[in-house]
Order: sequence, then C-alpha cells, then structure tokens
Amino acid sequence: MQLLTCQVAVSLDGFSAGPNQSLENPLGEGGTRLHEWALSTASWRAQHGLDGGEDNADSQIVEESTQGIGAYLMGRKMFGGGDGPWDETWTGWWGDEPPFHAPVFVLTHHPRQPLELRGTTFTFVTEGIESALQQARAAAGDQNVAIGGGAHTIQQYLAAGLLDELQLHIVPVILGAGERLLVDVGDPLLQPVRVIGSPAVTHVTYRVLR
Amino acid sequence: MQLLTCQVAVSLDGFSAGPNQSLENPLGEGGTRLHEWALSTASWRAQHGLDGGEDNADSQIVEESTQGIGAYLMGRKMFGGGDGPWDETWTGWWGDEPPFHAPVFVLTHHPRQPLELRGTTFTFVTEGIESALQQARAAAGDQNVAIGGGAHTIQQYLAAGLLDELQLHIVPVILGAGERLLVDVGDPLLQPVRVIGSPAVTHVTYRVLR
Repeated sequence: MQLLTCQVAVSLDGFSAGPNQSLENPLGEGGTRLHEWALSTASWRAQHGLDGGEDNADSQIVEESTQGIGAYLMGRKMFGGGDGPWDETWTGWWGDEPPFHAPVFVLTHHPRQPLELRGTTFTFVTEGIESALQQARAAAGDQNVAIGGGAHTIQQYLAAGLLDELQLHIVPVILGAGERLLVDVGDPLLQPVRVIGSPAVTHVTYRVLR
Repeated sequence: MQLLTCQVAVSLDGFSAGPNQSLENPLGEGGTRLHEWALSTASWRAQHGLDGGEDNADSQIVEESTQGIGAYLMGRKMFGGGDGPWDETWTGWWGDEPPFHAPVFVLTHHPRQPLELRGTTFTFVTEGIESALQQARAAAGDQNVAIGGGAHTIQQYLAAGLLDELQLHIVPVILGAGERLLVDVGDPLLQPVRVIGSPAVTHVTYRVLR
C-alpha cells in the first residue's frame, strides 16, 4: 500500500521553525537548533556528498528518511525564492544536485514550467493539494510519497485526512516563538507505532488512523 | 543527591490542560484525554484503592511516579477551591485520603493553617517558590521532591533553574487550545535520558542541565 508520509523536526514547545523567518534565514532564529542532531550524522553527510559524521541511531533515522520514497511534495516557501510570480533564476536552495533524487511537486499559486536538475525534477502545481498528491502518487510508482515541508503544507494534508504516517523528531530545545507545527489540523486519531530515543532527540512515528 | 522532579502529561501540540478550565472542569475541555492512559492502569487504580486495570509499561511508569518522593509542591489552582482568601471548607479534590501520602506544600498568596488529612498534610506557603522548595526539601529527608503541578508552577521552577528532572508523558492527542506547558520557561538545556514508548503515550525523561 502506497503511503503519504512526513518526517519533521519539532521543538519541545511545538515549533518547526524559529521566529522571523526570511529569505536569508529560512529556518528562523534558532531554527537550525532543530536540525543539528541530523547534520552531524554520517547519513546526512553522505546524502550531501560529505565524508565523516557520526554513525549512530540518529544516523539510521536520517538514512531511513529517504528510503522507499518515490516522490516528494513541498510548499512554495520550502522551495524558496520569495512570494508572488516566479523569479525563474531561483532554482531552490540545494544547488545543481538537490538531495531528493526523485520527482518533487511544489505547491504554488503561480504557474511555472518544470525545472530539471541533476536527479530531481521540480513540478509546480497550481491546482491544490489533492492534485499535487495525485501527481506525486503516479510519479512514485509503488513507492511512498513524502511531504518535505514546511509546516503549512503538512498541516493542510493532515487536516484533509490525507496523511498516513507522521514521524516527529522531538528536539529538546525550547524556541519560545516561531512557526507552530500542529495548528489548524483538526483532531486526528494518532497512534505511536515506533519510538527511538537518542541522547539528542526522540523519534516518534505516528500512524494517522483517521 | 536530592532532586526536584516533575512528571506531567502534555498533548502533541503542547497543552497540559484543555481550554475553559473551571472549578467544575479543572482539566479544561478535552483535558481528561491527557490522562486516560494512566487511569486505565493497574497502578493508578491501586493508588486509588481500586482493583483491576492494565499491567503494562504505562502502569510501571505510574507506579514509579510516586516512588522515592518525600514531599510535593503544587500550585493553588491544582489544590483547588477558587481564587482569593480561602474557603476553609475546601480540603482539596481528593477526599479523606489524598493519594500523596507525603507532605504537600501549596503555593498561595493567602495564608491558611496546615490541613491534615489521612496520610497527607497540606502546608500553605505564601513566601514564594524558593521558600516552598526549601520546606519541601527539609520535609523530604533523603528522598526527592516532586512538583505535582499545574503548568504555571512547573514553569516557575523550570524558569528559575530549580528543576532537575522533567518527565513528559507525550499523549498523541491534539487539543488545539488550552494551557500551554512550556511557555515563559527561558531556554533550559535539556537532555533526554530515558524514553519509553507504549501504544498510548511516549514517556520521555529529560535531565535539566542548566
């Protein structure tokens, strides 16, 4: 069965990005603290063409996060480049070879031709979340579809009852302000199905039952 | 070493009580959903003089929660009875034999003589959180002191750097509104030291390092 999954880091007080997000600081103030556990792992470094890093439970989680994913969905803010009609010189945050190595469907209100980079094609979808999911499902074949982020995109799919599995990386930092992850998502029935703790972060996978 | 500890249930979106708390509904709307995992355990039932219940990982967590605790701290709202000068006919929510079986120190702005019930003496402290902690430490002997709640009391001790250990029972419900647990607590350095997952709830113990 093809699943729609999502894995996202969240602070202990519920934020998935810090306050005052901007083009220069897309994770917001303090937002990088949510990702330090991942950046130090061997898996993350390997995915980004780097040697070294720690080979621990967190590294396994990072490695898993890209396995069995045949296509990605993401919001426009995560793809970046600012609001309004596209500046087509913007080709994402990730350089010539984005780490996805799978088709990515970007939710936007502004049409744009597909963008082909090494290993990843970005398709820009203006017909809403269900259309984007349908296109991603077709592109993924028998693999799963993952939501790359950000918070608003996750919220929309969770609220619409379309998300099957949510993995939270619960990071023991308190940001105090920023972008809340779990707002306007209704009252889904969630069941923890796997918990993995490390000294840096607690990984909990929830199955969305309805 | 004598520790100041706290264990508290929190929703996935960060609330430790639902909205519209009142004397009739002290946990707020939906707030009982944060405690269902505990109420069904054999340990909770035994602590309240009842037979039966489930003997599972959650039951062990509930049993642990009262072990090695020599005294409790709690806020006035948790003791109950409304705001302002005391109505001394109010003797707490728990009947003739409260489940603490240890001295309890209640933070309040209104003086009241100690209240002795079967197994538990409530002492009302008007001199602030440090005085209450000092009295509780003395009463606890070589055992730990635990904060019983509620959120505002936990926040004050955490913000003051006085809390040593915080155990969160992360319950997979989304309340959407209510009393946030981790606000106005500054930026403490927390390290997960134990994680126990069950199908109902994820128990994470954090050591407060500073």
